[in-house]
Amino acid sequence: MIKAGIVGGTGYTGVELLRLLAVHPDVEVCAITSRGEAGRPVADLFPNLRGHYDLCFTDPASGELDKCDVVFFATPHGVAQSTVPGLLAKGIKVIDLSADFRIRDVALWEQWYKQPHACPELVDEAVYGLPELNRDKIREARLIACPGCYPTSVLLGFLPLLEQGIIDASDLIANSASGASGAGRQASIGTLLTEAGESFKAYATAGHRHLPEITQGLQDIAGGKVSVTFVPHLLPIVRGIHSTLYATLSNKDVDLQSLYEERYRDEPFVDVMPAGSQPETRSVKGGNTCRISVFRPQDGDKVVVLVVEDNLVKGASGQAIQNMNILFGLPENAGLMAPALLP
Amino acid sequence: MIKAGIVGGTGYTGVELLRLLAVHPDVEVCAITSRGEAGRPVADLFPNLRGHYDLCFTDPASGELDKCDVVFFATPHGVAQSTVPGLLAKGIKVIDLSADFRIRDVALWEQWYKQPHACPELVDEAVYGLPELNRDKIREARLIACPGCYPTSVLLGFLPLLEQGIIDASDLIANSASGASGAGRQASIGTLLTEAGESFKAYATAGHRHLPEITQGLQDIAGGKVSVTFVPHLLPIVRGIHSTLYATLSNKDVDLQSLYEERYRDEPFVDVMPAGSQPETRSVKGGNTCRISVFRPQDGDKVVVLVVEDNLVKGASGQAIQNMNILFGLPENAGLMAPALLP
Amino acid sequence: MIKAGIVGGTGYTGVELLRLLAVHPDVEVCAITSRGEAGRPVADLFPNLRGHYDLCFTDPASGELDKCDVVFFATPHGVAQSTVPGLLAKGIKVIDLSADFRIRDVALWEQWYKQPHACPELVDEAVYGLPELNRDKIREARLIACPGCYPTSVLLGFLPLLEQGIIDASDLIANSASGASGAGRQASIGTLLTEAGESFKAYATAGHRHLPEITQGLQDIAGGKVSVTFVPHLLPIVRGIHSTLYATLSNKDVDLQSLYEERYRDEPFVDVMPAGSQPETRSVKGGNTCRISVFRPQDGDKVVVLVVEDNLVKGASGQAIQNMNILFGLPENAGLMAPALLP
Amino acid sequence: MIKAGIVGGTGYTGVELLRLLAVHPDVEVCAITSRGEAGRPVADLFPNLRGHYDLCFTDPASGELDKCDVVFFATPHGVAQSTVPGLLAKGIKVIDLSADFRIRDVALWEQWYKQPHACPELVDEAVYGLPELNRDKIREARLIACPGCYPTSVLLGFLPLLEQGIIDASDLIANSASGASGAGRQASIGTLLTEAGESFKAYATAGHRHLPEITQGLQDIAGGKVSVTFVPHLLPIVRGIHSTLYATLSNKDVDLQSLYEERYRDEPFVDVMPAGSQPETRSVKGGNTCRISVFRPQDGDKVVVLVVEDNLVKGASGQAIQNMNILFGLPENAGLMAPALLP
Repeated sequence: MIKAGIVGGTGYTGVELLRLLAVHPDVEVCAITSRGEAGRPVADLFPNLRGHYDLCFTDPASGELDKCDVVFFATPHGVAQSTVPGLLAKGIKVIDLSADFRIRDVALWEQWYKQPHACPELVDEAVYGLPELNRDKIREARLIACPGCYPTSVLLGFLPLLEQGIIDASDLIANSASGASGAGRQASIGTLLTEAGESFKAYATAGHRHLPEITQGLQDIAGGKVSVTFVPHLLPIVRGIHSTLYATLSNKDVDLQSLYEERYRDEPFVDVMPAGSQPETRSVKGGNTCRISVFRPQDGDKVVVLVVEDNLVKGASGQAIQNMNILFGLPENAGLMAPALLP
Repeated sequence: MIKAGIVGGTGYTGVELLRLLAVHPDVEVCAITSRGEAGRPVADLFPNLRGHYDLCFTDPASGELDKCDVVFFATPHGVAQSTVPGLLAKGIKVIDLSADFRIRDVALWEQWYKQPHACPELVDEAVYGLPELNRDKIREARLIACPGCYPTSVLLGFLPLLEQGIIDASDLIANSASGASGAGRQASIGTLLTEAGESFKAYATAGHRHLPEITQGLQDIAGGKVSVTFVPHLLPIVRGIHSTLYATLSNKDVDLQSLYEERYRDEPFVDVMPAGSQPETRSVKGGNTCRISVFRPQDGDKVVVLVVEDNLVKGASGQAIQNMNILFGLPENAGLMAPALLP
Repeated sequence: MIKAGIVGGTGYTGVELLRLLAVHPDVEVCAITSRGEAGRPVADLFPNLRGHYDLCFTDPASGELDKCDVVFFATPHGVAQSTVPGLLAKGIKVIDLSADFRIRDVALWEQWYKQPHACPELVDEAVYGLPELNRDKIREARLIACPGCYPTSVLLGFLPLLEQGIIDASDLIANSASGASGAGRQASIGTLLTEAGESFKAYATAGHRHLPEITQGLQDIAGGKVSVTFVPHLLPIVRGIHSTLYATLSNKDVDLQSLYEERYRDEPFVDVMPAGSQPETRSVKGGNTCRISVFRPQDGDKVVVLVVEDNLVKGASGQAIQNMNILFGLPENAGLMAPALLP
Repeated sequence: MIKAGIVGGTGYTGVELLRLLAVHPDVEVCAITSRGEAGRPVADLFPNLRGHYDLCFTDPASGELDKCDVVFFATPHGVAQSTVPGLLAKGIKVIDLSADFRIRDVALWEQWYKQPHACPELVDEAVYGLPELNRDKIREARLIACPGCYPTSVLLGFLPLLEQGIIDASDLIANSASGASGAGRQASIGTLLTEAGESFKAYATAGHRHLPEITQGLQDIAGGKVSVTFVPHLLPIVRGIHSTLYATLSNKDVDLQSLYEERYRDEPFVDVMPAGSQPETRSVKGGNTCRISVFRPQDGDKVVVLVVEDNLVKGASGQAIQNMNILFGLPENAGLMAPALLP
């Protein structure tokens, strides 16, 4: 059994790691930390876990994490970067769900996250944990930087087009929408049911922190400069991300449906939908699958890609476990085989 | 034009007063106070009011309220009781939407609200503003204590039965459910969309502050001791209260449908639904109407009353305006004539 | 008092006309027809109207419409075109909320709506009822074709840019999302709460009927050929449309905020939001206002316009009444002055 | 591997059986029938199953069910009763999720379901599949009648009180609320998102078909006559049932918390919550657990029991699989161990 620890277990990605690991055949969660809730049973905070875990939150300083083979960081940005070096030095693998090691350009990271980076020396070593792009590197990694929820959907959506070089990479549009769990489990007026319910709006129009990550990822795929307009929106649902991607085809002779089906044929968690269909966010609720449809409106030179994922699963905790499976040589879908909840 | 002021305009009952008064033919809102938002346009906080109000929040100490004919308190409990005496002394009428003057037994108030009452001398003078019960007293009042949202629904539902003395008053049950706006516009984890959405639960099972108010109101109607079990629940909707009331008939020979229709025939804001129908909360969304159905399951000795209201309108701001209309001799439905929003 | 009739009153645009006209100071609804519900009180079908209307549905053949000054068609496409000529011949004005007279190219209409047009001779005379574009023509019209819900939002959003000729009209994108009331009040599996709730998806990717209407409208504004990619999505809410519009600026030196504010300064129902803000659909729920924000992401050459409206009000019945007000010389905002319902 | 068949696989209990059985270690689904969808892949109708099943719907007459060890009926009432005898004759076990074999009094069944019963001779043999009550009989059964969703919650809630004989069984109240999936996957206006969303109401006040089943079950537990008032309500959520139960204690000296904890100590799918807490429907979403709280308001003689379950899992398909596990001597929680989805 792999011994896993979780840092910052009181947020939604923390409880989602616990939910998924509860049925993982090869993993035992042996430590979960929270400064504020130390001593409290996790099942007290998250009643869905009653009967599944006897575990209590412990203080991060308690040393419990040292017993682990792998530690997940389910923390806000800025936390992992100061703790990771000590864990790596003890031979513990780290899978960071936060943004700390996603951006290779440290200055760019500091500009968007408005603080100095505490561990720039590990940024280059960290592997960006998008298995569909970096599976081989993940296998060998000590430190994995899990992609953000929006970037996962945007990168998987544009990937086949950019790899083939058949779109104008200087003019991409990512119109994305996320359920409210993307905002985390923090008290705030803006995501009250009374404020975010029965409504829809764009937000962060001055610039969302996922933009530099999306741009970097698209450029890695394209092997050159990419320019993308990214507009996030807030959906009145708990879980789910939907990205509607627009690009202009430089080559209209390609069979888009086949391109996507071939590219993702062997991917366990990317499902290319039949031509003419549209993926619904509910079709991936609770599951690690990302579903994609691609079409050309009115057979013109625009290509539209529709991508859905559960922001807490493929967009966060599920993908983190997928990375762990790869890292430890387990079947990639271990613990991730349950179908999504529908209806 | 009646000059109206609002104290505590940043909550949901405050914005609802503004929404309703925007189309009231006889009222002009000339002051709205907020310590925290002084100087900010109200339409900045509540975009639905853009184009309807140029008004800015002012500091409560600014003296703006002194120009008013009537002042509404849309504040948490504990605020009105210290400010009301000064306003009354200046001849200004006060309509308090908070709980400060609802409970005649000051000791009981202090027990449930866990603080000393700052103005016990006015408690007796305050008129409990349920027009269907106290219309004549409201007409002559200086200080009106508007009923709570749950009590309004429970009192209107039991009223005809208790007035007639045909139920066992020692064993009443009020199973109520409220939309999340009842919890107010405060940052809190429990009413986040991610916590309260797509879910349903009871709460405050150790005792809800509306219980002593309900009991007092029912006893006023019954003219004697009443015992009621009250269990509130949280609905995953923005607006609406639904109360399902249960009692045992001591007299089964009464025509319940006629009883209710007759009692409420001349009430502008109580609508007795046809026999066999069930009121929906959405049928009163945004409107001041309370809709009621009454039936006897399997023609037995139980009577069930179904009551719906919009907690922010008939349960708060609309009823406050109804009280104001009565107080100032206006048509009782002035400014309150728009149908509810359906769908 | 203007005597108004409604054809097809059992759908959502029908009940919305009734809701709004209930408080219109200059209009009396004297007939509402429905083949299926003839004889039934409208308030029986729509409980929010209880106490507001005694009216019953009548058969369309009953002749009741002949007493009217104006008749609204709140019908599926294909109905108005066969009835309108008879009403016009009697001197009755017609405001058609359906798609029958929106498209000037009859062949194009027949292609998208898959049936022959029964009244091509009136298509040219019909005035496209977007007041912000055609106010003068509306004033003189006999027959008004009210815009579709999506087209209203897209046209108002692109209008200032196209009028100024500062964007590339050959490459526009309209990414729109609508609440489920846009699908009408028909029994169907796809819009059950269990299917459309807690989810989000694109639909009609093979081509939505509002596309030719949008293209025609944009071309009218631009005075030349326009090409637009339109992708509609289904929101898990009852009311509201949000359009996120993308275009490439050919002239980056323009002050977009001023452009929009100036263009819409005198428009009673278009509200340009402050720079840096984002409109929410809930800010227009139940109201006739369309709110717009405009911005340039990362100060590049893309312009993004965010537009919200209530699909049943500014997107249908409210705009129909706005048209009626213009047509009959009433204040344009008569009956439409209530603020939206928020929260 | 146990070979399982499903009759009527196009409804919500059908897809839920498939979702749960997809990860059951000991079961293989080898046939799923639907007259209307024969030949269509199940994953085509339910996209969450893409990648999990290659199975197509087959015609019920195809004989595919004959290969099965157990057949689940996920059909409307009236279907199973004509097909079950043939299957039993072939030695196939039957687990019926419909109401056909739940009521032992055939005349009562015919009265409530308004049709003659086609197979009265099997009614007595059928075992009512509530494991917490009938585990031993289930082990030996050929035909299991799975409890309805509401009855499961009401019976489990009252069970400890009735077994101990400490409440007045002549005056029970079950105030229940269900998510819209309880109404099934049928096109209807009443459960459209636009009709049932953002609203709450009671329904079936003239008598719900689960009433005789509840009464029978309570009487079986009590060993005598029981009278219950049952009022169901419709919640604007997809999944979840919440029952608030009221009774009068004849013995106030009992420790209710201990009573419930002891009674359900060894039950794998009943979770008694800590004193003072309230169960939320979301805490059981997708899981087979029923969570219960019990309390005495104001320490009086009323006892209130709060019960939540997922109507499609413990209220239907999960409980059916629990029954199958017992019947085939598998661990009772096989395939049912995943925690609920929260948030």
